[in-house]
Amino acid sequence: MKPPFETRIAACQDRLAAAGADLTVCFPSPNLTYLTGFAESPSERHLLLFVPARGDPALVAPAMYGAELSDLPIEDLHLRYWTDSDDPLEVVETVLEADLLGGTDPATVLVDDRMWATFTQDLRELLPDAEFGLASTVLEPLRIRKDEVELAALRRAGELADRVSLAIRERGDELLGMTEAELAAEIDRLLAADGGEEPAFETIVASGPNGARPHHHGGSREIESGDPVVLDFGAFVAADLEAGTGLYPGDQTRTIVVGEPPAEYERVHDTVREAQRAAIDAVEPGVTAGSIDRAARSVIEDAGYGDAFVHRTGHGVGLEVHEPPYIAAGNDRELEPGMVFSVEPGIYLEDEFGIRIEDLVAVTEDGAERLNETPRGWETGQ
Amino acid sequence: MKPPFETRIAACQDRLAAAGADLTVCFPSPNLTYLTGFAESPSERHLLLFVPARGDPALVAPAMYGAELSDLPIEDLHLRYWTDSDDPLEVVETVLEADLLGGTDPATVLVDDRMWATFTQDLRELLPDAEFGLASTVLEPLRIRKDEVELAALRRAGELADRVSLAIRERGDELLGMTEAELAAEIDRLLAADGGEEPAFETIVASGPNGARPHHHGGSREIESGDPVVLDFGAFVAADLEAGTGLYPGDQTRTIVVGEPPAEYERVHDTVREAQRAAIDAVEPGVTAGSIDRAARSVIEDAGYGDAFVHRTGHGVGLEVHEPPYIAAGNDRELEPGMVFSVEPGIYLEDEFGIRIEDLVAVTEDGAERLNETPRGWETGQ
Repeated sequence: MKPPFETRIAACQDRLAAAGADLTVCFPSPNLTYLTGFAESPSERHLLLFVPARGDPALVAPAMYGAELSDLPIEDLHLRYWTDSDDPLEVVETVLEADLLGGTDPATVLVDDRMWATFTQDLRELLPDAEFGLASTVLEPLRIRKDEVELAALRRAGELADRVSLAIRERGDELLGMTEAELAAEIDRLLAADGGEEPAFETIVASGPNGARPHHHGGSREIESGDPVVLDFGAFVAADLEAGTGLYPGDQTRTIVVGEPPAEYERVHDTVREAQRAAIDAVEPGVTAGSIDRAARSVIEDAGYGDAFVHRTGHGVGLEVHEPPYIAAGNDRELEPGMVFSVEPGIYLEDEFGIRIEDLVAVTEDGAERLNETPRGWETGQ
Repeated sequence: MKPPFETRIAACQDRLAAAGADLTVCFPSPNLTYLTGFAESPSERHLLLFVPARGDPALVAPAMYGAELSDLPIEDLHLRYWTDSDDPLEVVETVLEADLLGGTDPATVLVDDRMWATFTQDLRELLPDAEFGLASTVLEPLRIRKDEVELAALRRAGELADRVSLAIRERGDELLGMTEAELAAEIDRLLAADGGEEPAFETIVASGPNGARPHHHGGSREIESGDPVVLDFGAFVAADLEAGTGLYPGDQTRTIVVGEPPAEYERVHDTVREAQRAAIDAVEPGVTAGSIDRAARSVIEDAGYGDAFVHRTGHGVGLEVHEPPYIAAGNDRELEPGMVFSVEPGIYLEDEFGIRIEDLVAVTEDGAERLNETPRGWETGQ
């Protein structure tokens, strides 16, 4: 697959021009990774990407990154290194000078939403007459619609989570007597052994009454026969190597039972499953994120469990595990092809159990593509 | 030990007043941990500490942190929570209103150096007439002099690293045949088993020619008889529980050899050791950080290895593993009692080996206190 970064930078430039902004400046963050494929942690070292509305982008970076950055597949990217004996700000100044920005000082500058104040203060001093805004103004609408490279990575992350989910479910009786923490560690091990880069978030194994707490992680409780067990996990996978180093997460949830479930269980499980199906059936371009939440919530309310569905229905995924669009009550954002988000209704009955079923879906031209395809029932074993 | 946070906040307020600033606003960062003991990762959630020059501090935080924050040992701290149904900015506005800030809008606001642009933009919109600066102006001079709680934690982190260093050295022959990565994992295991919270940085095990690269981490190379092995590691330890949750790191380096070292080795080892001794002997209040670098570098230059000492002599440690003061050429900063930093000269001979010896030292009223006390020779075994 062709590296997507030049296309993304061009789209960013189009949006800058349309917004009447002259320049966006990114800091190590998902925005930088999105535009260049380069992933690094924020630090006090000057590492700044300048994307002007017109002209070539430039990256100011410590010289120690030279080998890595010179391989970035972005032909027109100007690399400007600084060494320990330079003042990095002087290098920034040369970039802000005429040639890269078409001969005039930028009047409107959009800085990375996560840029540290120490860097925004510097930029404000170098550009005292500029108006400042946030890069998300132009980048969020781009990042929210996944391109083919991203969709391919998210599909692979989904398949990885599915293989591990199925392997755990098939163990059936073997799960009895394991502690939640042991099972969580085993899930992490399987994800890593099967190509996952690292867990996308702390793996959730919540058995019996622990399942009623949506954010319970694996603890010392042993899994017993008849326990509903919420399993919520996923791993990051690398986007196509050719296409850079961005990592994309899996995120799916199944709730399973070894043995015979409690009395009320099957009715609640069917309700959550039906809520999830109704929500995914409602996904298509042009409907609002809030309407997807409503579709799930209505099913659960009608079954009498409205108060037990204590969180939003879902969240976008991409370079971040939680990002827009948020599938939440009142969110008027309209769905667009290429958006990818979780649909994860749940019912949490305090001191008894919890049930959550989650899949990632991608909005297509006329509906939804599910990125997870393992059984959604509670039954375990081969 | 009495929790130090009220004292630190009062010192911050004194410095704000002296600097003619009205308010500092901290974001999740080492600054926030320093002032409150509370440690959290930066996120898009509004979690902001307001410390006015006069009046009481206030913390705006998500309601989910309530249990944890209400235990903070800071009597006059106003806690202002927001829930998912609130606009966090409105809560910020109530804090910026008259009562907390003595009846007037702050004219000068110092924001956390690491505050994300999305939050600084909000503050600028709420306070359009204010001048903005960086919190480090007032907090760096405080944080650079460690108080008794911090010194106690750093001493314990040093003792922990020393115990593990000694245990590895005493294994002697048992180290032969281990890969660097295996030995690094073993060091991490020992640090954790002996009370370390987590490695303070990626443990460095660099054997034979790998030692010539100062930032080589543990790889697949097996340690052989006669290999110089650079061991650079440390773990975070928690400051007194009563005194909050800040973590302080150990950081020491020894270079050891199992068997007979290469021909030139002993002369180089003696040179590094002598350079380190000379640098530590030079430590006292009033001398410059640059002069400590010079003391180490002179010894190495005189022995003819000046070009092979490719990095600065040291860095400060505290809530961060690398922080001011930097013990580097030309740094005119004068040492003060309570500063803690590494002294870690090294000589790196490409394709042959590297040697680095590192201790943390605390500046005292009239000299230096070493926080590491294991043998600095290369000999191994019991």
